[in-house]
Amino acid sequence: MSILVTGGAGYIGSHTVVELSLHGYSVVIVDNLVNSSYDSISRVEYLVKKKIPFFNVDLRDSEALSKVFDQYKITGVIHFAALKAVGESTKIPLDYYENNVGGTVSLLKVMKSHDVKTIVFSSSATVYGDATRFENMIPIPEECPLGPTNPYGNTKLTIENILHDLYSSDHHWRAAVLRYFNPIGAHPSGLIGEDPLGIPNNLLPYLAQVAVGRREKLSVFGDDYDSHDGTPIRDYIHVVDLAKGHLAALAYLHKLNPDDGLYREWNLGTGKGSTVFDVYHAFSKAVGRDLPYEVVGRRAGDVLNLTAKATRANTELGWKAELSVEQACKDLWNWTTKNPFGFHVDHYSVNDGAFGEDRIHTVKFDDFSVSVANHGATLVDIQVDGAPKVCNFKDLKDYNLPSNPYFGATIGRIANRLPKGRFSIDGKEFVSGINDGRNSLHGGFHGFNSQYFFGPVARKGPEGVTLSFVYLDKDGNNGYPGDLLTTVNYIISPKSLEIEYQAELTPESSADATAVSLTNHSYFHLTDEENINNTEFKLVSSRFMEVDKEAIPTGKLKNWTDPDVTKPFVLSGRSFDHCFIVDEHPTKLDTRSLPLVKVLEASNGGKKLSIYTTEPSFQFYTGDGVNTKGYGERAGFAVEPCRFISAGAFDEWRNQVVVRKGEVYGGKNRYVFS
Amino acid sequence: MSILVTGGAGYIGSHTVVELSLHGYSVVIVDNLVNSSYDSISRVEYLVKKKIPFFNVDLRDSEALSKVFDQYKITGVIHFAALKAVGESTKIPLDYYENNVGGTVSLLKVMKSHDVKTIVFSSSATVYGDATRFENMIPIPEECPLGPTNPYGNTKLTIENILHDLYSSDHHWRAAVLRYFNPIGAHPSGLIGEDPLGIPNNLLPYLAQVAVGRREKLSVFGDDYDSHDGTPIRDYIHVVDLAKGHLAALAYLHKLNPDDGLYREWNLGTGKGSTVFDVYHAFSKAVGRDLPYEVVGRRAGDVLNLTAKATRANTELGWKAELSVEQACKDLWNWTTKNPFGFHVDHYSVNDGAFGEDRIHTVKFDDFSVSVANHGATLVDIQVDGAPKVCNFKDLKDYNLPSNPYFGATIGRIANRLPKGRFSIDGKEFVSGINDGRNSLHGGFHGFNSQYFFGPVARKGPEGVTLSFVYLDKDGNNGYPGDLLTTVNYIISPKSLEIEYQAELTPESSADATAVSLTNHSYFHLTDEENINNTEFKLVSSRFMEVDKEAIPTGKLKNWTDPDVTKPFVLSGRSFDHCFIVDEHPTKLDTRSLPLVKVLEASNGGKKLSIYTTEPSFQFYTGDGVNTKGYGERAGFAVEPCRFISAGAFDEWRNQVVVRKGEVYGGKNRYVFS
Repeated sequence: MSILVTGGAGYIGSHTVVELSLHGYSVVIVDNLVNSSYDSISRVEYLVKKKIPFFNVDLRDSEALSKVFDQYKITGVIHFAALKAVGESTKIPLDYYENNVGGTVSLLKVMKSHDVKTIVFSSSATVYGDATRFENMIPIPEECPLGPTNPYGNTKLTIENILHDLYSSDHHWRAAVLRYFNPIGAHPSGLIGEDPLGIPNNLLPYLAQVAVGRREKLSVFGDDYDSHDGTPIRDYIHVVDLAKGHLAALAYLHKLNPDDGLYREWNLGTGKGSTVFDVYHAFSKAVGRDLPYEVVGRRAGDVLNLTAKATRANTELGWKAELSVEQACKDLWNWTTKNPFGFHVDHYSVNDGAFGEDRIHTVKFDDFSVSVANHGATLVDIQVDGAPKVCNFKDLKDYNLPSNPYFGATIGRIANRLPKGRFSIDGKEFVSGINDGRNSLHGGFHGFNSQYFFGPVARKGPEGVTLSFVYLDKDGNNGYPGDLLTTVNYIISPKSLEIEYQAELTPESSADATAVSLTNHSYFHLTDEENINNTEFKLVSSRFMEVDKEAIPTGKLKNWTDPDVTKPFVLSGRSFDHCFIVDEHPTKLDTRSLPLVKVLEASNGGKKLSIYTTEPSFQFYTGDGVNTKGYGERAGFAVEPCRFISAGAFDEWRNQVVVRKGEVYGGKNRYVFS
Repeated sequence: MSILVTGGAGYIGSHTVVELSLHGYSVVIVDNLVNSSYDSISRVEYLVKKKIPFFNVDLRDSEALSKVFDQYKITGVIHFAALKAVGESTKIPLDYYENNVGGTVSLLKVMKSHDVKTIVFSSSATVYGDATRFENMIPIPEECPLGPTNPYGNTKLTIENILHDLYSSDHHWRAAVLRYFNPIGAHPSGLIGEDPLGIPNNLLPYLAQVAVGRREKLSVFGDDYDSHDGTPIRDYIHVVDLAKGHLAALAYLHKLNPDDGLYREWNLGTGKGSTVFDVYHAFSKAVGRDLPYEVVGRRAGDVLNLTAKATRANTELGWKAELSVEQACKDLWNWTTKNPFGFHVDHYSVNDGAFGEDRIHTVKFDDFSVSVANHGATLVDIQVDGAPKVCNFKDLKDYNLPSNPYFGATIGRIANRLPKGRFSIDGKEFVSGINDGRNSLHGGFHGFNSQYFFGPVARKGPEGVTLSFVYLDKDGNNGYPGDLLTTVNYIISPKSLEIEYQAELTPESSADATAVSLTNHSYFHLTDEENINNTEFKLVSSRFMEVDKEAIPTGKLKNWTDPDVTKPFVLSGRSFDHCFIVDEHPTKLDTRSLPLVKVLEASNGGKKLSIYTTEPSFQFYTGDGVNTKGYGERAGFAVEPCRFISAGAFDEWRNQVVVRKGEVYGGKNRYVFS
């Protein structure tokens, strides 16, 4: 039972999807992305930790739309999808009618053919036109005569008429028409917000761009109106309040008697007007300085006051705007500073036309690029001077091959082997999936490597670009206790890659403790030689863990003597699949605060890779067992910094991996190519 | 330079196409025929004697529409295409918005992409809604506030808004919005008129169906209004006046300064109101008897008076409705009696999906059917008891094969041979195309057999179904003088076929005389035997024309002696390609008034064909030279009743074929199978 949200990638749409998801609704999004970015949806998933099915469908493509209705049990539609720039609409009116009216008619026909007759429609106060032309119509009630003054408004009114005619033709239809006043602000998380393309038309997005230096100054169109400060009065509503209005309308429709339909309009506004200067001061205060502005002449068509009468929504829907203009300004500034260019991030790109699990994210600097997939938050490529440095598959589907030796994958909850899959916490024993002989390997059957990681949130910082992925591993998956929220950050700078792990039990987790050891399982090769035999290695330590014939630690540490691995040696025919020790007595659960230690240096033909970590040990594996599509044995070597192998099975090591509610697990690795 | 008419097959569209054609415009029609018939277009062609390119295109199919604009130089569009039933629109509003608004947006986008920015739009007085809700708005001026009360009206108003927004976005657009009041009547020719499917919604079409017995009686909704007879007042306008309003609007747009655009609305009404009873009496008078009616209660939404203020159109467009309600009633009754079931005629059908020259028209009775193509008004099939009786091609294109021996074709202007292609009238000599050795055969290179005949007008009469085709052979074609208008009627009864010819010079013809001899060139076979050798023949006369070795008459008549062809004889190896004489001294130019003479009887295996004619002679040809796709020598025999062969070249026979302005050439043949 899902709610279809059209235009769910847009400003108001994405905020509404967040509220729907947080209130237990399943959501399906269709959006043609002409004026929005899939990034907003990936960020919503990141925020709500739920997968949100998305279809890149234009509503006018009724065949494609119909397939979405075939695939999901849709019980209602919230319809945002539309072109929405008033100024643009006066220049290309046909496109507005075609998209907005044509798209809606197509949507309604598909709804009808699937017997879905509940719709919440995103209308606009623009349908009133200049309400000041009548007596006593400020604040504007829903009964105010309509008279849009631009093509955009005409399309909204036409759609209202269509919905009304449709209800008149069949009283089973339920249409809630929501007339928005002036939406402002952003989600307090700073993850989603308005991302206007080109020059913003609205006051606050413009001011925000002035604040970050993208625009010189604000133009105030007239300060000689009859208001307390001479500037015109509008009704600004926080986008989160607006989003909640949609849930209220949807609930209202759902509460009708089964045989009843409805066509009804509701204003969504605060009922309280603010002048341009009121908003200007509130935002300047949020920014912490007075922003430049200039008073210029009045703008044609502007009037003194367009404030909503919001009592109908307040009383009938039980909904009321609660957030202040000041709060909206704070949230907008938070969004703006975190995303000064909206969803666009320099150096960052996604493979064209891919959505959801099919995406591969690439951060590219001049001679260094890193690519990561949502599937397993897998490192799928590193290119140095145009040459690949890790083993990978061209096709993401091949990562599901049984022969895939965990290429590039994020490994969790427990990297490496767990004897008989067993571990105990506070005397309570748990069993993970037995997927390697009698033991559990790399988290069991459905380890992190096979999971869909939400995100990424891509952001540019002083050190480079960070791609932040998140995955919520549910209590019981692979036998592990507790809901574990894991964040994997890929921090790509022009010269190096850093991977950072953070994991903690959620406050809602039923279990109070779990076990965690996370790493990345890339196979490196410095040249295009068939194998790594010519590679010269140097390790930080010769101390390593003794293992039995099942590769399970005995609990003893030994020294590697032939050769002395702390001195450079050429690999030749030597094989490694051992855990070397960096710190014999680790104490930190979150190692990220420790200094990075260079644990391995590899070189060949003038190419060099140095690997650093904050972890107490690392598995060094020369890939002798590799035999998969495109790659044979010793095609690459793996270095897996992590907690001691099988730590959960040994009393003296267990603290390395046990994470209790309120505690934070952390680790960090760095890869430097030269 | 063409005018594109969308919905040109409809009621108002087809009448406008007639006026456009008669006023020298080239017209291209697109229509999806969902609510209309191609028959109206073929009748318009029949009426105006011009080919009108037609495309069965839905406006929403912008790709197909675009191809029409690619193919023709369109200078303006008159846009009728729309669903138009108010009642239906309240039941299926989405279809109305999709068709009317969606179709228009698609049209306008294609126009824009082809830089065609002139449009006359078929709007409706429905956009005013109930104009009596305001003071002083009857008669209704264009400034009256708008407020449609049904989805149909909403779509019209939405399109007006789109056109207005489009003009505002680009002042090169020229949009004339014509708001129709109540169109009534039909073309005075009786060839086209309103053909409402289902129960008519409007007063006069309903009354017409009452008059022909398709409906029991008229319901008059209320006679207690404040009018002279208590029934409501509307503004009824003759459809021909309405059609002319479109030409006036188009001319107005064309007269604007080259750089000027326009958006403007004009009422098209008479400015004079008539009550329901006024119209009832006028139509009863046209019919000649009082039609049954019953006064019932008022209908919801009806108001007293909705009469147009027409002064804007009168003064600005220089257009004024000139025809009375009485005239409209006469014309409607003429249309109704000639076409009691609109364009539908029992027993008549057209090959599915074919338009223009590709059509084949079939009249089918139980065991007898005849099929005729527009191409050459060619008799393409006769079926008796399911067995074919004439040689033909399955594919119309094959009629253009050089080897086609004139299968089934209409032959003209001069059937058979003309020595050296020469003939003289009043001492003036003309030369036709030399297409047979040194002579002209069957009219020359572009004879009637290869021409597109307009029509047919199909009508059911007491004797059967008549298919009437017309062709205007222009002065100079094949060397013949004068514009010759030829009508070919196929009259199919349950047992026989009659073909009737009529030809005359048009009043506008530059030449005062020409020469004509028309026939049909079917090849008959009574059985499915390989050749006609077993067929038994009997001719009306043994008198025949002597010919030289080029098959040109010597001027002498002789008697055929072996065998005696006036007695039954089996053909066996005998060959005929000779002209037998029915009347040695014919005097009539229009022979149709003469009695039909049975000139030949053929029989084989119990099947018999008798051929009758009013013509003075007939060529009898046993098909010895036939060698074409699917047929070899003697596959069939031809009997071609016509004037004496080469009559134009012989002083003593010339009068048989010379047609002077004001004279009518005529002939008639009958084919009876038993």
